[in-house]
Amino acid sequence: MSQSLLVVTAHVGDFAWRCGGAMALHAQRGVPVHLICLSYGENGESNAAWQGHDAVEREAVKQLRRAEAEAAATVLGVSSLDFYDLGDYPMPDSAEAVQRISQTMRRTNPAVVLTHPEHDPSNLDHCRTFDMVLRARMQSMAPGHGRDHIVPPQIMSFEPHQTELCGFKPNILLDITSVWDKKWQAMQSMPTQRNLWAYYERVAMQRGAQAGRRAKSTGQLYGEAYQSIFPTVMSTLVV
Amino acid sequence: MSQSLLVVTAHVGDFAWRCGGAMALHAQRGVPVHLICLSYGENGESNAAWQGHDAVEREAVKQLRRAEAEAAATVLGVSSLDFYDLGDYPMPDSAEAVQRISQTMRRTNPAVVLTHPEHDPSNLDHCRTFDMVLRARMQSMAPGHGRDHIVPPQIMSFEPHQTELCGFKPNILLDITSVWDKKWQAMQSMPTQRNLWAYYERVAMQRGAQAGRRAKSTGQLYGEAYQSIFPTVMSTLVV
Amino acid sequence: MSQSLLVVTAHVGDFAWRCGGAMALHAQRGVPVHLICLSYGENGESNAAWQGHDAVEREAVKQLRRAEAEAAATVLGVSSLDFYDLGDYPMPDSAEAVQRISQTMRRTNPAVVLTHPEHDPSNLDHCRTFDMVLRARMQSMAPGHGRDHIVPPQIMSFEPHQTELCGFKPNILLDITSVWDKKWQAMQSMPTQRNLWAYYERVAMQRGAQAGRRAKSTGQLYGEAYQSIFPTVMSTLVV
Amino acid sequence: MSQSLLVVTAHVGDFAWRCGGAMALHAQRGVPVHLICLSYGENGESNAAWQGHDAVEREAVKQLRRAEAEAAATVLGVSSLDFYDLGDYPMPDSAEAVQRISQTMRRTNPAVVLTHPEHDPSNLDHCRTFDMVLRARMQSMAPGHGRDHIVPPQIMSFEPHQTELCGFKPNILLDITSVWDKKWQAMQSMPTQRNLWAYYERVAMQRGAQAGRRAKSTGQLYGEAYQSIFPTVMSTLVV
Amino acid sequence: MSQSLLVVTAHVGDFAWRCGGAMALHAQRGVPVHLICLSYGENGESNAAWQGHDAVEREAVKQLRRAEAEAAATVLGVSSLDFYDLGDYPMPDSAEAVQRISQTMRRTNPAVVLTHPEHDPSNLDHCRTFDMVLRARMQSMAPGHGRDHIVPPQIMSFEPHQTELCGFKPNILLDITSVWDKKWQAMQSMPTQRNLWAYYERVAMQRGAQAGRRAKSTGQLYGEAYQSIFPTVMSTLVV
Amino acid sequence: MSQSLLVVTAHVGDFAWRCGGAMALHAQRGVPVHLICLSYGENGESNAAWQGHDAVEREAVKQLRRAEAEAAATVLGVSSLDFYDLGDYPMPDSAEAVQRISQTMRRTNPAVVLTHPEHDPSNLDHCRTFDMVLRARMQSMAPGHGRDHIVPPQIMSFEPHQTELCGFKPNILLDITSVWDKKWQAMQSMPTQRNLWAYYERVAMQRGAQAGRRAKSTGQLYGEAYQSIFPTVMSTLVV
Repeated sequence: MSQSLLVVTAHVGDFAWRCGGAMALHAQRGVPVHLICLSYGENGESNAAWQGHDAVEREAVKQLRRAEAEAAATVLGVSSLDFYDLGDYPMPDSAEAVQRISQTMRRTNPAVVLTHPEHDPSNLDHCRTFDMVLRARMQSMAPGHGRDHIVPPQIMSFEPHQTELCGFKPNILLDITSVWDKKWQAMQSMPTQRNLWAYYERVAMQRGAQAGRRAKSTGQLYGEAYQSIFPTVMSTLVV
Repeated sequence: MSQSLLVVTAHVGDFAWRCGGAMALHAQRGVPVHLICLSYGENGESNAAWQGHDAVEREAVKQLRRAEAEAAATVLGVSSLDFYDLGDYPMPDSAEAVQRISQTMRRTNPAVVLTHPEHDPSNLDHCRTFDMVLRARMQSMAPGHGRDHIVPPQIMSFEPHQTELCGFKPNILLDITSVWDKKWQAMQSMPTQRNLWAYYERVAMQRGAQAGRRAKSTGQLYGEAYQSIFPTVMSTLVV
Repeated sequence: MSQSLLVVTAHVGDFAWRCGGAMALHAQRGVPVHLICLSYGENGESNAAWQGHDAVEREAVKQLRRAEAEAAATVLGVSSLDFYDLGDYPMPDSAEAVQRISQTMRRTNPAVVLTHPEHDPSNLDHCRTFDMVLRARMQSMAPGHGRDHIVPPQIMSFEPHQTELCGFKPNILLDITSVWDKKWQAMQSMPTQRNLWAYYERVAMQRGAQAGRRAKSTGQLYGEAYQSIFPTVMSTLVV
Repeated sequence: MSQSLLVVTAHVGDFAWRCGGAMALHAQRGVPVHLICLSYGENGESNAAWQGHDAVEREAVKQLRRAEAEAAATVLGVSSLDFYDLGDYPMPDSAEAVQRISQTMRRTNPAVVLTHPEHDPSNLDHCRTFDMVLRARMQSMAPGHGRDHIVPPQIMSFEPHQTELCGFKPNILLDITSVWDKKWQAMQSMPTQRNLWAYYERVAMQRGAQAGRRAKSTGQLYGEAYQSIFPTVMSTLVV
Repeated sequence: MSQSLLVVTAHVGDFAWRCGGAMALHAQRGVPVHLICLSYGENGESNAAWQGHDAVEREAVKQLRRAEAEAAATVLGVSSLDFYDLGDYPMPDSAEAVQRISQTMRRTNPAVVLTHPEHDPSNLDHCRTFDMVLRARMQSMAPGHGRDHIVPPQIMSFEPHQTELCGFKPNILLDITSVWDKKWQAMQSMPTQRNLWAYYERVAMQRGAQAGRRAKSTGQLYGEAYQSIFPTVMSTLVV
Repeated sequence: MSQSLLVVTAHVGDFAWRCGGAMALHAQRGVPVHLICLSYGENGESNAAWQGHDAVEREAVKQLRRAEAEAAATVLGVSSLDFYDLGDYPMPDSAEAVQRISQTMRRTNPAVVLTHPEHDPSNLDHCRTFDMVLRARMQSMAPGHGRDHIVPPQIMSFEPHQTELCGFKPNILLDITSVWDKKWQAMQSMPTQRNLWAYYERVAMQRGAQAGRRAKSTGQLYGEAYQSIFPTVMSTLVV
């Protein structure tokens, strides 16, 4: 079975800011990209929606964020998109969500799963998501949970809002220059979090500058940073 | 200029046990492999030589270890081999050695340099080597030290004797199964450290088993573990 | 809205030993100090009560500890005091408690919340409390949980029983010399844990001596140690 | 009351690979050894059972693994053996299990409890077990949970599958040479995990070689590695 | 004696990018700001100078960088400026430099010293500087080195090029919005490193955005990040 | 050859405050205790001597501190005492000192060497000492440096002034109650550092209280804390 890229985020906006480039890049190359948003981020990451319209209610905020996420996912070329609607700020633990994620893993056979880092004292929903993804990974490889068990995927954490606070140590800088326009368009599909556009544009430029320095590239690159949780098996060190 | 693999070790034996597989693998693929041994390990890692022959003197031990290293390097397909004869247990700091390493870097343009980990309380020669390699890397990229400055190479630490004591956290498992016979032969070219043969055969089997588990491979693999010091610039996450 | 100091502890005794000085200091300066005790510490931190009286039962122990806590809180000048009665050794996780803490945060608008450190293998109730406080902090700033959302407070961990075991790294030494008499009196309001009086008097003297050394003060100071979880925004480095 | 050794593992196989030597060693010396297996490892660590027989069902797998564990425990001289049947991959949190473990602690008064390390991203059942053991330790020492409270035992983590991934830092190398035959026999009592026999034989040989090096022993030793969670009270440093 | 701010950098450019805001801020408030540049960065951080003019020689590069540093320092309001000319890429250890720094500390009585972080594998000159500053701090407080010994200053590390690689964990975000124009002008006084202007403008914007988020500020702020090495003695927690 | 305890300190006072109990305890049991003081601490840790007498000169301070150290060492029952007079604040690196320490190791065959921790940003002399001890340990076991090479000793770090600042994590609490009077007398043999007496009396009481708690002892104990650098080979886990 061919391999895919699976993305699991706590809130709807996360995928655009943090790994939209990787999603567009792999989709463009024909790798199926699957996306799971565990919540709509309706409580804690939709401030503009709550502020802007006096009469907005929870369901309306959720529908608004869902529509934004669908638009951004379409721009990035996503193959499938799932909303679990677990609620946020804080997000509860959910054994059922773990099981659903593991079933998606079995069905889509990801080579890599992109998700939040292990630690983030300012946003425990991100830690919760990391923990649920690791549990789902275990479940996906257990024959006792079904004959369709898979080789467990690599897990890579994408970049949190303030890296040092989270102990985030990237070992990969991904060059996303060729798809930056798509990432930028996806970000702009989420006007509710307009306040983050410039911030994550600069993140992409900083990671691109760091990548360019290592690759001795001139001209502005755009990049994304990732931290692998497990060792990677390689057949060469000099690529 | 095409790229090479550079190996810098504190003592003559280190390269065989710790990265002999990587050396053979890349040499076989046509990548030039350059080797620098900062000392002959004559004081602290040649016990059999000192014990066996009552009349052995320092120079004789050094010549013996040099011959062993040359034999092992030949087996592995090394392109060049340099001995700095800095002395060991403990190894002194040497600005001149740093400069020589940096000149070799400029001449050989390594994509990757393999060396010891940053920390090892039981063997400070290893830490000293790591530190000198990092300084040489700086010097190699500085235009003020000559117009032949290079793009700074990735540094990868190879496996120390007791990993946990050294804070060694590998992010790469290299599959060396196809060249295991060469690594084994290289190890056996060093009878002075015969006591380590079985130990590092088991290290290779354990790393191979860990690699096989991740790659869902059956049958015994042989492996080596590496820790990248700097992030790697990549253009895809799903290889 | 003016700002307050909020203290959240796992057991009734914790606030006196660990941050009684900060409480007295701020209360004296007119900063409202609010206190939440998640349990009475009736199971694991009331040994004298269980040992002393053969017929003591759980409810009696809880009432005894509650009375002691009220007395100590009065000495320190606390504005409000809440008991959640979650039980202890071990303390269960409670989404309801998280919500109550977040509501208190919204009502009292704390600049700083004092609580236990993130890690303590000898007392997981402390870790549980830290985790619940961080979740409550998220909930307090989410507009989706109510229009009265606040700017999220700084969190500071106070000193655990054995700091090195907990990875506690204080970045603040608070001079409590001027209120030491109140802290000492508050500690003595808790005869059930009489065994800790001298221990925490010495803790205060050691932290005072460390503070005095840095401030080049002579004479015995009394101090408390804190570790900030989040960066602090400042407008000067030289105070 | 005399003291015992208590072992708490996530899955049935763990005790044989990771601390079978310590179990045999202490049993032989007359120290009672008690064993708790929180699950049968039926879902994630019984692959051969699921693969081999088309018609195998969950209950059959569990009975098979139970029989293997009983056989291995008998070889090692275990005094008591408990199965909690919590399920695995992933294992749920269970306050009831915590209570049962704490009751066993009170009954058996362990000087040391052997269990999994705190961290293991590839196997969260191991982390869950560590957390439940620490909570049970708290509960066992709390007079509010019964007059038979005990002095809290030392906790030692045994070796995980890939140490560096788990942040495992052993401070003890236990010489198990004298009981290696029993450990080997116990491992072979578990044919379902036959794939691990050679791997853990090599682990024992590597730890033995490390121990021999420190003790300047010649000849092959067998060893096991442990990490103490709490400081040990000693009356001498030179044993 | 009134207190000052002392800045010690490895290369001439470092102060502008990393702490130019703090320098301007304190100078403007009347705090004397003293600057020591241990090298001209002539070898490794003056690429444009070496590339641009075929005939440039080392001394000319040094004079060029010195003039740039003087111009930038003037913009920032520096009270004194010292060049040690130790050489760079790599910088040697120098007991004499340590002594000179300590004498400046005694003369200027800094409350805070700003310098590089402890770790940076890509630039050991930065680590060397940190180490020499800590040694100078010891020397400055020792009565045996002269009666003019001082209270040892706080040391704060400023931001390195890639924070996560250096284990940099800021605990202070300094709001430099009011002096951003001066910092920007100082940066532009160094055309040799023109390639870094946009990079560090974005760093300032990211730190400003992080500060604004914590302070609930709207509008773009500019910031700098610092990590305190020693605990700070405080008399209040709620500023 | 019977085994000894070797103590290596940066300054004369260190041994009394930090490991005087261990010294007295082992001397009393007949274990030879050897002491090396790398400096007299004349520059940075003899403030009273410099302040008290206007005419005091360096040599006089050194003699004063030497006499105090001899008196304290006599109280503790030391077998041999060596002063290297390297100078302090800061202490220089010295290959000759490394060699002398290694020769003492060969002559005295220590089972354990007590010295400073690896890290201490407030006192780099301590770090320098740790580093020189580890290098001496290597040299002492190298046959190339002489046929009298020894089994390398365990290294244990004793307690620094502020543990958390140094990353000190003790794994041993040594009960020194039976020799506390001797330690106290040794401390009082050093009136130059009278300002530390009460501080280290409290340290001993805190470590004693922590030890008593783990050993369920009542009554005040006195203790010292140690961190082992290398794993210990043991033949049992239940002592």
